[in-house]
Amino acid sequence: MTEEIGFEVHIAQHYETALERVIAALKEEGFGVLTRIDVKATLKEKLDVDFRPYIILGACNPPLAHRALSQDAIAGLMLPCNVTVEEDPQGESIVRLANPEAMLTVGELESDPILLEVAREARARMERVAEALLTP
Amino acid sequence: MTEEIGFEVHIAQHYETALERVIAALKEEGFGVLTRIDVKATLKEKLDVDFRPYIILGACNPPLAHRALSQDAIAGLMLPCNVTVEEDPQGESIVRLANPEAMLTVGELESDPILLEVAREARARMERVAEALLTP
Repeated sequence: MTEEIGFEVHIAQHYETALERVIAALKEEGFGVLTRIDVKATLKEKLDVDFRPYIILGACNPPLAHRALSQDAIAGLMLPCNVTVEEDPQGESIVRLANPEAMLTVGELESDPILLEVAREARARMERVAEALLTP
Repeated sequence: MTEEIGFEVHIAQHYETALERVIAALKEEGFGVLTRIDVKATLKEKLDVDFRPYIILGACNPPLAHRALSQDAIAGLMLPCNVTVEEDPQGESIVRLANPEAMLTVGELESDPILLEVAREARARMERVAEALLTP
């Protein structure tokens, strides 16, 4: 069975407002933002091409990350959990949250019961973030 | 068929030296390091727990990232490409490079021929990085 790669939420608000809401909603579920890649700025700088506002956040729940890494250091290839925010053609926003349980299917890591447990908890938290963002 | 999640290389050198070599080898294949997560420092700060030296680099080849994102913005859930460097119990180093083609199997994204082509090129480059690191 193929797992859904992530959860997509449309937010009828401007990019900057949506980004603030996403960061706040992640915080509510214990995810701090460890990395931010401003894709628009990076592509402009490196390739001199224009791209719409698009950011990739690296979200990390420290207790879950610690459990995963202590079980198997290979888990670092899946951390942090990506969350993207982009501007759509209407000037509103599209948010995508990676599904940690789907990520675990790569390399059959889900056969490890501890990693599976951690990924399931992270997935439940990400789903609650997505639900929170659905509320206007 | 399950794709290998990544490529692992043992480097018989200290962590800091290995880290420098990894960054240089990535650069040779057109990958810049966009993000760095010092896992040891982060876990100490957030949880007050001790962890061995371990870093997660976010490596990005801008032309490949641009092609992937232009084809389907969902590709941002898989970017950048993770590379981890950790200290092993002997004071030497373990490097892991995520396999971009394996990442694409999540959510069956490999059914998109453009994304598959980009991932295959990224994989070939990551394999060359791994080979370069095998040379003392």
